[in-house]
Amino acid sequence: MCEYLYRLFLYLVIQRYMLLELRELQKNTKEYLGKEIEINGWVKKIRSQKNFGFIELNDGTFFTGIQVVFEEGLENFEEISKLTISTSVKVTGIVVESVGKGQAYEIKATKISVYQKADSDYPLQNKRHSFEFLRTIAHLRPRTNAFFATFRVRSILSYAIHKFFQEKNFVYVQTPIITGSDAEGAGEMFRLTTLDINNIPKTENGSIDFKQDFFGKEANLTVSGQLNVETFATAFKNTYTFGPTFRAEKSNTPKHAAEFWMMEPEIAFADLDVNMDVIEEMIKYIVNYVRENAKEEMEFFNKFVDKDLFNRLDTLVNNEFGRITYTEAIEILKNSKQKFEYEVEWGIDLQTEHERYLAEKHFKKPVFVTDYPKDIKAFYMKLNEDGKTVRAVDLLAPGIGEIVGGSQREDDYEILLGKINEMGLKEEDYWWYLDLRKYGSVPHSGFGLGFDRMLMYITGMTNIRDVIPFPRTTKNLEF
Amino acid sequence: MCEYLYRLFLYLVIQRYMLLELRELQKNTKEYLGKEIEINGWVKKIRSQKNFGFIELNDGTFFTGIQVVFEEGLENFEEISKLTISTSVKVTGIVVESVGKGQAYEIKATKISVYQKADSDYPLQNKRHSFEFLRTIAHLRPRTNAFFATFRVRSILSYAIHKFFQEKNFVYVQTPIITGSDAEGAGEMFRLTTLDINNIPKTENGSIDFKQDFFGKEANLTVSGQLNVETFATAFKNTYTFGPTFRAEKSNTPKHAAEFWMMEPEIAFADLDVNMDVIEEMIKYIVNYVRENAKEEMEFFNKFVDKDLFNRLDTLVNNEFGRITYTEAIEILKNSKQKFEYEVEWGIDLQTEHERYLAEKHFKKPVFVTDYPKDIKAFYMKLNEDGKTVRAVDLLAPGIGEIVGGSQREDDYEILLGKINEMGLKEEDYWWYLDLRKYGSVPHSGFGLGFDRMLMYITGMTNIRDVIPFPRTTKNLEF
Repeated sequence: MCEYLYRLFLYLVIQRYMLLELRELQKNTKEYLGKEIEINGWVKKIRSQKNFGFIELNDGTFFTGIQVVFEEGLENFEEISKLTISTSVKVTGIVVESVGKGQAYEIKATKISVYQKADSDYPLQNKRHSFEFLRTIAHLRPRTNAFFATFRVRSILSYAIHKFFQEKNFVYVQTPIITGSDAEGAGEMFRLTTLDINNIPKTENGSIDFKQDFFGKEANLTVSGQLNVETFATAFKNTYTFGPTFRAEKSNTPKHAAEFWMMEPEIAFADLDVNMDVIEEMIKYIVNYVRENAKEEMEFFNKFVDKDLFNRLDTLVNNEFGRITYTEAIEILKNSKQKFEYEVEWGIDLQTEHERYLAEKHFKKPVFVTDYPKDIKAFYMKLNEDGKTVRAVDLLAPGIGEIVGGSQREDDYEILLGKINEMGLKEEDYWWYLDLRKYGSVPHSGFGLGFDRMLMYITGMTNIRDVIPFPRTTKNLEF
Repeated sequence: MCEYLYRLFLYLVIQRYMLLELRELQKNTKEYLGKEIEINGWVKKIRSQKNFGFIELNDGTFFTGIQVVFEEGLENFEEISKLTISTSVKVTGIVVESVGKGQAYEIKATKISVYQKADSDYPLQNKRHSFEFLRTIAHLRPRTNAFFATFRVRSILSYAIHKFFQEKNFVYVQTPIITGSDAEGAGEMFRLTTLDINNIPKTENGSIDFKQDFFGKEANLTVSGQLNVETFATAFKNTYTFGPTFRAEKSNTPKHAAEFWMMEPEIAFADLDVNMDVIEEMIKYIVNYVRENAKEEMEFFNKFVDKDLFNRLDTLVNNEFGRITYTEAIEILKNSKQKFEYEVEWGIDLQTEHERYLAEKHFKKPVFVTDYPKDIKAFYMKLNEDGKTVRAVDLLAPGIGEIVGGSQREDDYEILLGKINEMGLKEEDYWWYLDLRKYGSVPHSGFGLGFDRMLMYITGMTNIRDVIPFPRTTKNLEF
C-alpha cells in the first residue's frame, strides 16, 4: 500500500516536473526498460571510438552513474565524441540491458544536447587527487566520490537527528548565535562588532564605548546553546538545539574547526540514567538510519576510506553500552599494566589514550563514564553527595575516545550560585539561568554531540576539514 | 499494524523510562482509565478548599494540562494546599472520569511530592501579561500559552521543511556562518575579529593588519548561504541550506531582527517554472503539516491571536497560486484606481502596499510575480532576452506581501562576469562562483524563505521578537 502510494507519488512528480532523476532510474530500472526517457546530467567519464562511445552520466541524485551509449547515427556525433569531463548535457534515449561488463543497464542515446561544454582545464580529471588539494577547490570537491558520499551522509545524519527527536516530540529550539555571555567560561570567543575599528569610540575614562556598538554592549559568537536550551526544557520538558557553534582556538589539528555544528538535547525530569538511555538510543538510531538510507555511500566508505568501518559501527549498534564511574575507570586504568603517556591518578582529566584504552581494549565497545571530579568539569553540573564529584557523563567509543559529553545539571539554587562565585563568573550574567532554580526547579539533564566529529566517526573520514562543506580554521576563510 | 507497533513502542519507552508524559496521557486517556499512574509536571493553577483542591498540571509535552484532585487524606495535604504557581511536583494517582465541568478526565492523587516550591515572586501569575513585558523574561515566556504554542509550532515548522526536502532527496548543506565575502553586495554586516580592539595592530602604511586576525583577513557574518549552496547544487542537483543569517541593520521594526533563520533551496536543471512549482508545493506542505501536527496550538492562534488565521491559511492551501509578470503586475496596479502612497510605474520596486493589493484585492490568493527589472534585483539573476528584466520571482501572499523571493540564476559566464564588474563587486571574491559557469554550467534556480516571517504568517504573531526564542535586535542582547 505504502509502496503503491509512493510509486504513484513519484509518477505524479515526474509528470509534473517532466524530469526523470537518476536516483529513480537506478532504483527502478526495470520499469523503464525498453522505454524512452530524458535525463539531465554531467559527463563523469567519456570514451570515444570511431563509430560509437560511452558516457558515464550522473545528475547528482545517486551515487552511481549510468552508462550512456552514443553512436555515429547521432546528428552531433562528432561534437559528442569530443565532450570534456563535467560537461552538462540532456540525454534522450532508450533504457536497454547492457551487453558490456560493469553494468546491467544502459541508455542507448537517440539525442544528446549540450548545456555547456566544460572548459578543458577542469581540475577534476579522472585521476586521484589528495584531500589537501581538494580542500583548495571546496566548491568543486562534492563532485568527487569521497566528498559526494561525505556530504550526502552529512545531510542524512542531520535529518536522522531531527527525526529521532521529533518523533519523540522534542521541541527544536534555535538558540542564539550572537551572545552577550560566555557559556562555560571556557573557550576563546569571536568578538562581533559594528564599530569602526579604524576609529574605536572611547568613553571619557578611555575604555571602549560599547554603548555605541550595535547591541549597546560587547557581543560574541556562541560556544554552546546549552544554557539557553535549558530554559526551554523548563517549559517543554523535551528539547534540543542543533546549530553552529564557534571557538576561536588556534589549534591546527585534524579535529578542530573554528565553526562547527553541535546538537544539544536538554530534558526536564531526567536524571543521568535517563540521559544515558537517550544518548545510547539516539546513537544507535542515527547510525542505523544512515546505513539504511545511504547504502551506496556507506559501502564506499567501508571499501575505500576505512576498511574497519562496518565492524566498528556493528560493535556500536549491537552492544549494550558499558556504564562505569570515573573512579572505577581510574582503577581499571591503574590495573591495566598499560604504558600511558599521561600518568593515571584520581583527579586527572582522561586523555584520549585513556579513553581509547577503556573502550577499545577493556570493554571492546562504547562505555559511559560518569561522576567525574568536580574540578575538571563545568560549573553547571550537579554536585554529588560526596561533595567532590559531579554527575557528568562522557561516552567513550572505540576508535575515537570521547564522542558525547553531558551531565545532570545542578538544580539547587544555592549550590549553583556558590559554584558561579567560586569559579569567578559574573552572577549578573546568569540571573536568568539562576531563575530556573527558583521557579519550579527540576532534575534535568542534557548532553552535547559534536556533529562534525560524529560524522567523521560514521564515515571514517579523518580530518574535520573534509566533513564540513566550507571549513573555517585559523588563517583559512576561503569561499 | 502501524498503530499497534506504535503503541508497543510507547509501552516499551514508558517501561524503560518509567515515566508517563502528559502528551501520551492526553492522547490516550481511555487506556489509563482506572489505572494508577505517576506523572511529573509544574503547577499551572491551584485552587484549594478546606478538604480538597485542584491543580492544573502540565509537564510541557502537551498544550492542555490535566486536572489533579487532591484531598485531605494526603499526608502532606497542608503543604500541597499552599503550593505556589510553577512549583514542580510528582503526582501519583488514579485516572478517573471527571464529574466537574471543563474536563472529561482527571487524576485523583494518592501521593504528591514536591521537587521545588516556586518562589512566590514568580512573575507569571495567572493574569494577562503584555508581549512587551514577556520579552524581558524570554527565559520564562515559553511557559505561557502564546509562547508555548509559538515555539512548539516553530519546531514543527522547522521539521516540516526538512521532511519536505529530505523526502525528495534534497541534500541539506550547512553553509558557513563566517564569511570572507559579502553575498549580495547588500545589507550591513557584522564584523568578526579576535584582534585586541583596544590595541588594533597596524601595518607599516597605517591600515589595519588583518594578517594578524584569526583568519588572516577580514571576516563577517553571512547574510545568505545562497552562493555557497549553489556550488553544491552542481554536485547533487537538489540541495537546500537552512540556518542563521545576519543583518546589522538598525531597523527597529516588528519585521527585522539582526539574527534570523533562512531556508534556501537550490536546484540544478531547473528553470523558473520548476522553482515556482517547488515553492508552491513546499508552502502548502509545510502549512498542512503544521496544522496536522500542532492542532491544539493552531486552534489557540486562530481563537486568541488572529481570528482570520484559518481563513488565510485555507486560501493558501486550497488555491493554485497565480502567476504574472512584473510588467503585468504594474498594469494591474495602474488600472486599479487604488490610491497608493508610492506611485506606480514600470521600474519601481514593489512596495508592501502594492504587493498586498495584488494578493488581497486583485487575486484574492497568493500570486507569483516574475521577471523584474534587472536594476532592482541582485547581480546573480538570469538576464532575460529583452536585456532589461531578470528571471526573478517573488511570491506575494494576502495579509503580508512578499513571503518568498527567488530566481533562476545567471548561468552564462560572460554575462555574469559583466554584471559583477558593472555592480562594482570584486571579481576575485567570486572566482569560485564563476567557476560553476565554466565547468558544466546548467540552468539552475533557487529561492529564499525567511523562516521567522513564515512562522509569523502561520501563527498570526505580529512581531518577529515574539517568534524567535531569544531575539537579537539593535541594543538588545539579553540572555
